[in-house]
Amino acid sequence: MTAAAPGIVTLGETMALLWPPEVGPLRHAPVLRLGVAGAESNLAVGAVRLGVPATWLGRVGDDEFGRLVTATLRGQGVTTTAVVDPGAPTGLMVKERRTARATRVLYYRSGSAGSRLDPGDVDPAAIAGARVLHVTGITPALSDSARAAVFAAVEEARAAGVTVSLDLNYRSALWSAGEAGPVLRELVHRADVVLATEDEARLVVDAPDDRALVAGLAALGPRHVLLKQGAAGSLSGIDDRLHRVPARTVPVVDPVGAGDAFGAGYLSGLCRGLGAEERLSLATTAGAFAVTVPGDWEGLPSLADLSLLDQDPDAVAR
Amino acid sequence: MTAAAPGIVTLGETMALLWPPEVGPLRHAPVLRLGVAGAESNLAVGAVRLGVPATWLGRVGDDEFGRLVTATLRGQGVTTTAVVDPGAPTGLMVKERRTARATRVLYYRSGSAGSRLDPGDVDPAAIAGARVLHVTGITPALSDSARAAVFAAVEEARAAGVTVSLDLNYRSALWSAGEAGPVLRELVHRADVVLATEDEARLVVDAPDDRALVAGLAALGPRHVLLKQGAAGSLSGIDDRLHRVPARTVPVVDPVGAGDAFGAGYLSGLCRGLGAEERLSLATTAGAFAVTVPGDWEGLPSLADLSLLDQDPDAVAR
Amino acid sequence: MTAAAPGIVTLGETMALLWPPEVGPLRHAPVLRLGVAGAESNLAVGAVRLGVPATWLGRVGDDEFGRLVTATLRGQGVTTTAVVDPGAPTGLMVKERRTARATRVLYYRSGSAGSRLDPGDVDPAAIAGARVLHVTGITPALSDSARAAVFAAVEEARAAGVTVSLDLNYRSALWSAGEAGPVLRELVHRADVVLATEDEARLVVDAPDDRALVAGLAALGPRHVLLKQGAAGSLSGIDDRLHRVPARTVPVVDPVGAGDAFGAGYLSGLCRGLGAEERLSLATTAGAFAVTVPGDWEGLPSLADLSLLDQDPDAVAR
Amino acid sequence: MTAAAPGIVTLGETMALLWPPEVGPLRHAPVLRLGVAGAESNLAVGAVRLGVPATWLGRVGDDEFGRLVTATLRGQGVTTTAVVDPGAPTGLMVKERRTARATRVLYYRSGSAGSRLDPGDVDPAAIAGARVLHVTGITPALSDSARAAVFAAVEEARAAGVTVSLDLNYRSALWSAGEAGPVLRELVHRADVVLATEDEARLVVDAPDDRALVAGLAALGPRHVLLKQGAAGSLSGIDDRLHRVPARTVPVVDPVGAGDAFGAGYLSGLCRGLGAEERLSLATTAGAFAVTVPGDWEGLPSLADLSLLDQDPDAVAR
Amino acid sequence: MTAAAPGIVTLGETMALLWPPEVGPLRHAPVLRLGVAGAESNLAVGAVRLGVPATWLGRVGDDEFGRLVTATLRGQGVTTTAVVDPGAPTGLMVKERRTARATRVLYYRSGSAGSRLDPGDVDPAAIAGARVLHVTGITPALSDSARAAVFAAVEEARAAGVTVSLDLNYRSALWSAGEAGPVLRELVHRADVVLATEDEARLVVDAPDDRALVAGLAALGPRHVLLKQGAAGSLSGIDDRLHRVPARTVPVVDPVGAGDAFGAGYLSGLCRGLGAEERLSLATTAGAFAVTVPGDWEGLPSLADLSLLDQDPDAVAR
Amino acid sequence: MTAAAPGIVTLGETMALLWPPEVGPLRHAPVLRLGVAGAESNLAVGAVRLGVPATWLGRVGDDEFGRLVTATLRGQGVTTTAVVDPGAPTGLMVKERRTARATRVLYYRSGSAGSRLDPGDVDPAAIAGARVLHVTGITPALSDSARAAVFAAVEEARAAGVTVSLDLNYRSALWSAGEAGPVLRELVHRADVVLATEDEARLVVDAPDDRALVAGLAALGPRHVLLKQGAAGSLSGIDDRLHRVPARTVPVVDPVGAGDAFGAGYLSGLCRGLGAEERLSLATTAGAFAVTVPGDWEGLPSLADLSLLDQDPDAVAR
Repeated sequence: MTAAAPGIVTLGETMALLWPPEVGPLRHAPVLRLGVAGAESNLAVGAVRLGVPATWLGRVGDDEFGRLVTATLRGQGVTTTAVVDPGAPTGLMVKERRTARATRVLYYRSGSAGSRLDPGDVDPAAIAGARVLHVTGITPALSDSARAAVFAAVEEARAAGVTVSLDLNYRSALWSAGEAGPVLRELVHRADVVLATEDEARLVVDAPDDRALVAGLAALGPRHVLLKQGAAGSLSGIDDRLHRVPARTVPVVDPVGAGDAFGAGYLSGLCRGLGAEERLSLATTAGAFAVTVPGDWEGLPSLADLSLLDQDPDAVAR
Repeated sequence: MTAAAPGIVTLGETMALLWPPEVGPLRHAPVLRLGVAGAESNLAVGAVRLGVPATWLGRVGDDEFGRLVTATLRGQGVTTTAVVDPGAPTGLMVKERRTARATRVLYYRSGSAGSRLDPGDVDPAAIAGARVLHVTGITPALSDSARAAVFAAVEEARAAGVTVSLDLNYRSALWSAGEAGPVLRELVHRADVVLATEDEARLVVDAPDDRALVAGLAALGPRHVLLKQGAAGSLSGIDDRLHRVPARTVPVVDPVGAGDAFGAGYLSGLCRGLGAEERLSLATTAGAFAVTVPGDWEGLPSLADLSLLDQDPDAVAR
Repeated sequence: MTAAAPGIVTLGETMALLWPPEVGPLRHAPVLRLGVAGAESNLAVGAVRLGVPATWLGRVGDDEFGRLVTATLRGQGVTTTAVVDPGAPTGLMVKERRTARATRVLYYRSGSAGSRLDPGDVDPAAIAGARVLHVTGITPALSDSARAAVFAAVEEARAAGVTVSLDLNYRSALWSAGEAGPVLRELVHRADVVLATEDEARLVVDAPDDRALVAGLAALGPRHVLLKQGAAGSLSGIDDRLHRVPARTVPVVDPVGAGDAFGAGYLSGLCRGLGAEERLSLATTAGAFAVTVPGDWEGLPSLADLSLLDQDPDAVAR
Repeated sequence: MTAAAPGIVTLGETMALLWPPEVGPLRHAPVLRLGVAGAESNLAVGAVRLGVPATWLGRVGDDEFGRLVTATLRGQGVTTTAVVDPGAPTGLMVKERRTARATRVLYYRSGSAGSRLDPGDVDPAAIAGARVLHVTGITPALSDSARAAVFAAVEEARAAGVTVSLDLNYRSALWSAGEAGPVLRELVHRADVVLATEDEARLVVDAPDDRALVAGLAALGPRHVLLKQGAAGSLSGIDDRLHRVPARTVPVVDPVGAGDAFGAGYLSGLCRGLGAEERLSLATTAGAFAVTVPGDWEGLPSLADLSLLDQDPDAVAR
Repeated sequence: MTAAAPGIVTLGETMALLWPPEVGPLRHAPVLRLGVAGAESNLAVGAVRLGVPATWLGRVGDDEFGRLVTATLRGQGVTTTAVVDPGAPTGLMVKERRTARATRVLYYRSGSAGSRLDPGDVDPAAIAGARVLHVTGITPALSDSARAAVFAAVEEARAAGVTVSLDLNYRSALWSAGEAGPVLRELVHRADVVLATEDEARLVVDAPDDRALVAGLAALGPRHVLLKQGAAGSLSGIDDRLHRVPARTVPVVDPVGAGDAFGAGYLSGLCRGLGAEERLSLATTAGAFAVTVPGDWEGLPSLADLSLLDQDPDAVAR
Repeated sequence: MTAAAPGIVTLGETMALLWPPEVGPLRHAPVLRLGVAGAESNLAVGAVRLGVPATWLGRVGDDEFGRLVTATLRGQGVTTTAVVDPGAPTGLMVKERRTARATRVLYYRSGSAGSRLDPGDVDPAAIAGARVLHVTGITPALSDSARAAVFAAVEEARAAGVTVSLDLNYRSALWSAGEAGPVLRELVHRADVVLATEDEARLVVDAPDDRALVAGLAALGPRHVLLKQGAAGSLSGIDDRLHRVPARTVPVVDPVGAGDAFGAGYLSGLCRGLGAEERLSLATTAGAFAVTVPGDWEGLPSLADLSLLDQDPDAVAR
């Protein structure tokens, strides 16, 4: 199964995820739920649900959490031939919903199997056969070899004429803004699609407002610049046209994963040949689904689910 | 205990109900809560809590879920001599809260014990001794014998001068609109009280707006026509007078059961000799309680609870 | 460890607390969560989290719930040398969230170990070494000896020049308004800080509006009068100046504990030498934290948490 | 429904029961399961499952736990018209499985509604219409009025020629051996059936071994003396004949309730006209079922279940 | 992905499985765990864990339970291109552990998607490319089309020289012994490997003891006859040699799945070229793992786990 | 509170502990329980329960798991002034009960705060004021600075005439036998009390059987050599006399923690001035308690609990 599925290929670290069922300080939680999470694989699951094949490349440890990562992604229909690295544990991430509005994350990923990704793990055939390669700003922060793997994958994609998508995804727990800026800037130069929050965009370009941020990123090369603005929606520059799309109003249960869902919507629209407005609409709706369900990706919609957000909230299908 | 309690008699199918504790796709729920549900028995429980005796007639399988149905209804004070049918399993229903606003239901009731209800299960003495017979549009959709049982019960009630109440309760999973329309129309003809949503009313009468729907239904015979409009409240035509009552504003946790609660409020008011406005107020408040608690009927109020909705939300009784 | 920690000393009853994980009638809850609660120890925990040492004096039974009370308070950093009373069980309290907005409480504290507090349990050295003694209107309602203990503690504090704080905390399940009024009035006379809701204030003074209530209480002696008005915020009279502070807008999960948190914020501000406005701001923020988490005190903020309420709700710290 | 069902009538206190799902010190249990328990109602449920109608008389508070008691017993098919006493709370009992073999119980029943049972609550018609009246040594320990109620019920039964059954059920938390002895002895004098452990029997008669204990009790009047010996089975003197029956070997999950189950088996056999050996066999099997399931009565068998203990443990019915 | 993986191909129905976390009557379980189960897919998962590729063919409904079945099997590494049948729901199965030793199963599979399997769903290429085709006596009991599918698959296998394995797996809830006997006998004639309990073997051959049963089955054609005898181990006739293997002594938590595990062990040994004794040892050990964990297949061992049963029970790997 | 409590002082790493409620592969656990664990603090809790003050020295991260460690130990009565290290996370440990008899542990402690313990964290006054210093072979395996801290503590103790206790506690996940041997041997030389399993003892001395192992260790200096032999009990050489004590027969739920409990029993006996036989009996009983409860230390007995193991398993205290 090393032959790449057409569609989206992504690479990165997927970890075991633990989160308490209730809001409040983590130390008072008697039990934690167990699942998996990773920005790249979240996006891959989202794409599969929206009808686009997706492949995830990465490393897991030879342990139960590694087996959980692989089983979960395969179960969700993501193609994966994860490298099992017997020399390091699968990374772990603990989410705390300190209040209904404030989420905090604790990482146990330093030295993890996932952080030991290296260029040799990158499958050129998988990338060459894809429509889109998606990478994030998390992976280059994990280790030198992981950074090299990202650049190697990007070069493979560019050589093969595969669209390169980049989510800046800055994680302050992994590296400083000073370290991240130049690396992300290099990646933006090589990307066709860039996703970022305003704060993340500012790591790469200096600009007074959101329109200027979009213009600044676009000036570095990407044809698709998508600025994610949370409850305010998004501002995108696509082929030199600006699109401002408001967010959908839904009850927010867990904000984590909204950005990955947004990316999954946009990229799956790209793979399916939708126009810019339809892609943005799909991205916005997918993002709305992500936040209404606890868990990073569990709430992502299938194509059949998309219309649910338009329904009368009191209607019950039976 | 076959002697009918005075008050409300109802008949139909009550099933085991499974639902996940959290919002999200059902497939990601590691556990499901176990309870029971059925439109008719939901209403019966509601009536008992509001001080009116209620009797439920129906069939259950000779299995643990059947014993759960009987134990739960008896425990809630509903009189029941459920027929135990060894030839079929108790029906089962699975509720999914796909998002905080979209509920979906999966049925395992085809061929169930409950669907095998037949006219012989109808206890004429129980009906003749009651103030109100309540039936729904679900039961006639279950099987030919169940449909015959509903019509038999209605005839018993009419013969004995007992008020006939009908909730249209259209279930698209059980029959098509084309099948349902004529049957429901026949039942409306025979009913004194009719409860319906706008969509359901349109299965029976063709009308441009809610006032016309109420008028159209009333023209078929019923003296009490109650149009349930969810968050918009209700529009009722009672003895040729129109009443528009807004819904009460409460946080919606689970919309299922609101209609049954509304009916329980109205019919219990009728049994207790309240005036039309008081009946509608009771119906509206009972409906509000139903949606604030997970489970179809667990949140229904006792008479003592009714004032809770008027309290200062920060007050704590202790 | 009988030497008093500097900071706040308080005395009262702390009970085992049981509460259902979900909203709805208690009888339908298959499981209850187990914790501890008590107005005075809630405040003590809150003070410790805000950087001020706190000592709790009280009695527990020689049973598992008593050991839970002691372990929990010590674990939270509250100094305690709880008296273990082999002659009575630890009190118990069951909380029911009947609807998302209506909380009810059931007590099993009559004859409890906590209610057998007596003046001999009051540690003069602990009080003399403190900056503030905090008592509530609950303890004098528990028993004659508990009432005597409260007055004895207050006298110790006054003799030692320690600030006396009183939360009226009227509990109708423990005594009538007629019984409570004179006792609370006597305590107000002896207090420097008084916390009360409007209804509680009216047990002591008769006044047409909130300003008059504050003035009325202040006229009895206290230099700090804090009127807690729930969603409306608070009105305080401090050193003859009125301060009206709006509440912070947060999603309310469990209103119980907000008052204790407010007190913890105010008194810890006092101990830390903050000005009146800062004290009130701290009180208001602490109160907001308390209501967003189930449990009476679990959600109380540390100094580091305080800024979380100001953050972008979609931001995730990682 | 005050008309007595034929079969068994019993009276006593039924409480809310809380127990942790796992073995270990109670203080470490994050959640407790919620149910109901009471020696007399446990036996009533057992009798109903074995095909014999049962009626339970008692008091509950006007609170959620009282409603839980009533709903549970009615749900299990026990006839009850529990007196709702607004002046006292429903009793509460907390079970701790300290180790897999050592169970401890904590009571919150002092002053409870159930302990306020009085002779006026005893329904003479219910007793006169029954085959057996069953009382325990717990009820007379609760209060003077409860003791009077037990003796009143026994007199009613004797006057009406109804068999009187007594389970000594000594509870050291409620009264001392010195207090209990004379009262239990008086009850034994009036009883036809006596159930006891060896320790309990010694409160009434002084005897060197189990045979002498049986003989000693029988000498006081009862025709059926049943000595429960736990893992050793039972020794019974019935109509002057001794029967020694070994216990059934089953994995013990929760020993509480075994005695009540044994009584339910024996008395239901009596009502159904079985011979002494069959009654004892039924008692022994019912006791074995009780201990294999957590909860005091939940595991009690129906007539259809009885053969399960004889099956191949690996067989699965499907 | 329709290309068959080498190894084992199987076909049948896989259902959603619900089971209570604790022992006791199902009606008292407040929650049920959610998973999937099916004799054939249990075996497929077991084979994959033991290093042998496995493919499962079957139908699921277009519903959440169907998606759960597919996700679970794929997640466990089983290759599947399950047919999604929009016309019927995914089957459902509820397991009750009535006592620690007596398990009962309730089916909701009549008319299910899985039962609508038909010969067109059988993928000849998948079978021809496999080493073993495994079928059970459950599938032919589901429907005429399912029976035809089994026979079609068996014919494909025989034509392609693929080993045919059959587990008799008699389910009395699906058909009578009289209906099952002739069908199973026909299948035995066509099989190379037959797995059966003694009771199941008697549906096909009449014999006085286990040796005669093995001989009788072998006389019908199969070279491998494996008689599963639960706690007594197994008796097998392989290439005319008898092997008696005792069971491994382990604490039994859930007996369901032991037979499927035994089959997975034997068939994976066959695929991996092990000798008869090693195959039986693997089968026995896999069966022992299955019963020590709740769930039908979750406890199945990987090759690395196999040695765990030989370890010192007190040893902890860390 | 830096003044040492008399009794036992220990130092090491205490981690957050996650474990699944049920037996089976970790990847199938939907939730994990959250607690804390560490060999040294397990022993400290055990000592406190047995009436001997204990102080734990160590480092935790400035995160919720660190706050959980501190709160838990303080709550259990252990004196601690844990160093909060903002530069590293609190260590984490995940326990898997793969089968009822095989436990596996996964560590996330590399680079943890706890592993950064250094000699500066050792409080000489705390050690000098204690009766016993207890260290384990785990701490020197964590880092160079942690090893130095252990040796520094041991030197402080020896200088102050404080008894030095050492549990070899070899962890193969942390260092090889080759690395561990010489370090442990150096510690044995400096210890008065040595606890070890047979395998651990062989890392230090070469001997053919248990008697020789005890003799070999004793020859290195310690006056108390305690060889823990699991289900076989223990063999001890104390002041040149051999003691063989059988284990107590109890149902084993979780073997982890038995060794720490054994140590707690022995050392607390030492502090309380018990004779050798009594110390060993206390150690044996404490070990038996540890294994009957899930969790590493939660089941440890108080002095009052000790007699529970001698009771009739069917007796219920109430």
